[in-house]
Amino acid sequence: MRAVTSIRPAELIERKRDGGELTADEIRELVLGYTRGEIPEYQMSAFLMAVYFRGLSGAETFALTDGMIASGETIDLGAAIGRRCVDKHSTGGVGDKTSIAVGPIVAACSVPFGKMSGRGLGHTGGTLDKLESITGYNVNLSTDEFRKIVKSCGFAMAGQTDQIAPADKKLYALRDATATVPYIPLIVASIMSKKLAEGLDALVLDVKTGSGAFMQSLEDSKKLSDALVQTGAKFGVKAEAIVSDMNQPLGQYVGNALEIYECVKILRGEADELAQATADLSFELSARMLLLSGVADSIEAARTLVESKVSNGEALERFRKNIGCQSGDQSICDDPDKLLEKGIRKHQIKASHSGYVTAIDTLSIGNALSEIGGGRVKADDKVDHAVGFECVARLGDDLAEGATIGVLFCRDETQAETAGKRIAASYKLDPNPLQSMPPLIHAVISTK
Amino acid sequence: MRAVTSIRPAELIERKRDGGELTADEIRELVLGYTRGEIPEYQMSAFLMAVYFRGLSGAETFALTDGMIASGETIDLGAAIGRRCVDKHSTGGVGDKTSIAVGPIVAACSVPFGKMSGRGLGHTGGTLDKLESITGYNVNLSTDEFRKIVKSCGFAMAGQTDQIAPADKKLYALRDATATVPYIPLIVASIMSKKLAEGLDALVLDVKTGSGAFMQSLEDSKKLSDALVQTGAKFGVKAEAIVSDMNQPLGQYVGNALEIYECVKILRGEADELAQATADLSFELSARMLLLSGVADSIEAARTLVESKVSNGEALERFRKNIGCQSGDQSICDDPDKLLEKGIRKHQIKASHSGYVTAIDTLSIGNALSEIGGGRVKADDKVDHAVGFECVARLGDDLAEGATIGVLFCRDETQAETAGKRIAASYKLDPNPLQSMPPLIHAVISTK
Repeated sequence: MRAVTSIRPAELIERKRDGGELTADEIRELVLGYTRGEIPEYQMSAFLMAVYFRGLSGAETFALTDGMIASGETIDLGAAIGRRCVDKHSTGGVGDKTSIAVGPIVAACSVPFGKMSGRGLGHTGGTLDKLESITGYNVNLSTDEFRKIVKSCGFAMAGQTDQIAPADKKLYALRDATATVPYIPLIVASIMSKKLAEGLDALVLDVKTGSGAFMQSLEDSKKLSDALVQTGAKFGVKAEAIVSDMNQPLGQYVGNALEIYECVKILRGEADELAQATADLSFELSARMLLLSGVADSIEAARTLVESKVSNGEALERFRKNIGCQSGDQSICDDPDKLLEKGIRKHQIKASHSGYVTAIDTLSIGNALSEIGGGRVKADDKVDHAVGFECVARLGDDLAEGATIGVLFCRDETQAETAGKRIAASYKLDPNPLQSMPPLIHAVISTK
Repeated sequence: MRAVTSIRPAELIERKRDGGELTADEIRELVLGYTRGEIPEYQMSAFLMAVYFRGLSGAETFALTDGMIASGETIDLGAAIGRRCVDKHSTGGVGDKTSIAVGPIVAACSVPFGKMSGRGLGHTGGTLDKLESITGYNVNLSTDEFRKIVKSCGFAMAGQTDQIAPADKKLYALRDATATVPYIPLIVASIMSKKLAEGLDALVLDVKTGSGAFMQSLEDSKKLSDALVQTGAKFGVKAEAIVSDMNQPLGQYVGNALEIYECVKILRGEADELAQATADLSFELSARMLLLSGVADSIEAARTLVESKVSNGEALERFRKNIGCQSGDQSICDDPDKLLEKGIRKHQIKASHSGYVTAIDTLSIGNALSEIGGGRVKADDKVDHAVGFECVARLGDDLAEGATIGVLFCRDETQAETAGKRIAASYKLDPNPLQSMPPLIHAVISTK
């Protein structure tokens, strides 16, 4: 006989429906009972919809996060390797490949970095998919292997095991099917439960804002940042959030292999100017992590350390070592062109008329690439690592008619036609210049 | 392979969540897809919670009712017997036994009456349970038997078959488990889908208001009445709602056999004065049905006809005939005392101090009786037909210390103790008289 929860879910739903608050024990039992399969999906989804309308207090959000952590195993990475560990998390965007650069950089600065990621879905890519562009690279590590690689080479990047916060996986699928995803405390509990189960000491959150982000308004992005940082603090984890711009794809490339290529070029000091935003944001995130973990005592010192570890090649060597530990082809560190598939078709996307780039529908670019295999439309889709997009025109650029907006990397004429049209239509060309350029970093939010 | 609905439930939930309106086709597909098991419970419950917060328009309520009717078979009673048929429905109360009197009266006035009922649950009794106090009385009629009995004896009373509005059964169970019961358009669709599937021409609704009703406030009861009547009109059914008082149990008795006893006494013209409210309300409901079905052309003429059919014994003869058709013991019509179990314990409930009866917690009386077997706490509980309560003290009465509040019909000392205490506590005795007596009928609501 399975254990039966002591709570009455219908009463809890009713209380929340009427604007009341649940106790920490009630929330915890709700989450754990749901994860064990004792509380049916239909009660949980009604509860989530009531939460959508009535909200969760700070204490309830804490209890929800705590219950979700308790639904699975915790890794306690810091204790396992005897060092303070850091991680970063991005809320997801288009061309958002900073983790690939941040891992090696932070590790080269002697801060252990254990990154557990998910797969890409919808318009955003996933770190795991990107890493698998490297021939042989293994992201399916056991908890034990993960800990060992963090310890031996300073960083590891792996898929989240099913044992980490299983409540989140179940709840997220339910929220996705019941229109209860976009509510900040639920997003916070989802992100933080997975991260906190890793047992880290510090966490830098990259909260995207703009046309390619889940949170399109700056105000919402700041609210989410604040809630994430507050929740981290309540669990005793130093957390800081950077609200970074996603009104255009980040840096030069979008696409799995192309993004790894861009990062290796940055680590080699050979990056194109178009990749500048990727380098800037990766360096800033890395510096924030050094500061949080106490390796540097000012943000200026941290930035200097980060830049020195890139320019002296130590970060690249760290990446090479990690690729070795995770069974990948290390030679891409010397010859990044090996990442690019020879036969891929390159389709130039041109401006149909002259004008200033005043807006980019970044979400639409992400979706167009997903649909030709660059990402996943459904969770079980296969990913084509070679397809992608080089973003040549940037926000604010003054384009002549026929100027190159970007280059689509695709498989055939049909893909070139459909995705090409959709991407071209994502760029708004106006006779008048852009009023003000969005900054790369809109805000940094910490607990004081 | 089963059919797959053309709608995307998550999108419909999202639209409703954001305050939008669904089309009639979308609502219909949602209900039918849910009934067929293609739309999962968790999406339906999230939708219902979104509806609770955002509401349903008149058009959406119509479409929901229509979809629920279409989920099962329709009887088309009028066409089957070649006559215009009527029915009544009560939203449920304590001691609410009017259907037992109304059926014979209306049939005696030449208006076919086909009543399909449910079982009692919670604090309210069910007509089926009451009828089964009559030895042999069979409420489990096939649709065919039901039609035949309405045709041959003018009225039949049976349980609703599973083929009538199965969506309602499924939805009600889901709402009950997810705190989405108390929302008027959902209540309307639930009541009206079952009634309209019977194919009637006219419907009188008895909407209870007060301490023993689902709608405790008069304002809500009027809103519900209005919504029920409007929905009936949209389906071409003449509907009228009587908002009747449920601030105390209706009439003299609460309890299955006791309520049949009270009705037979009324039909025999031998009822106690304490049963006056039952007679008054039953006669009024009957008169309203005659008026709606065109048998009388004024409410005064209808009331006169009703009273004459009771005083000349025709209504009682109609009941005798119906009992025969439904295999019950007809001799209770001549000797109603046969309904009362000889060995039952009668426990006097006395006033602990003197005072005016200024309030009665009628819900609590209903629940106390359910818990000793007079009703059902859970849907599969067995009912003890003999237990019940005689309501001696009425609202406004001036009681001396030790005066009888009522008589509990129960099985043993434990029941007498627990239910007796709870019932005694339901009566509020004040030094000052009641400011104003609630009327038996608060309002009559029709479409104009």
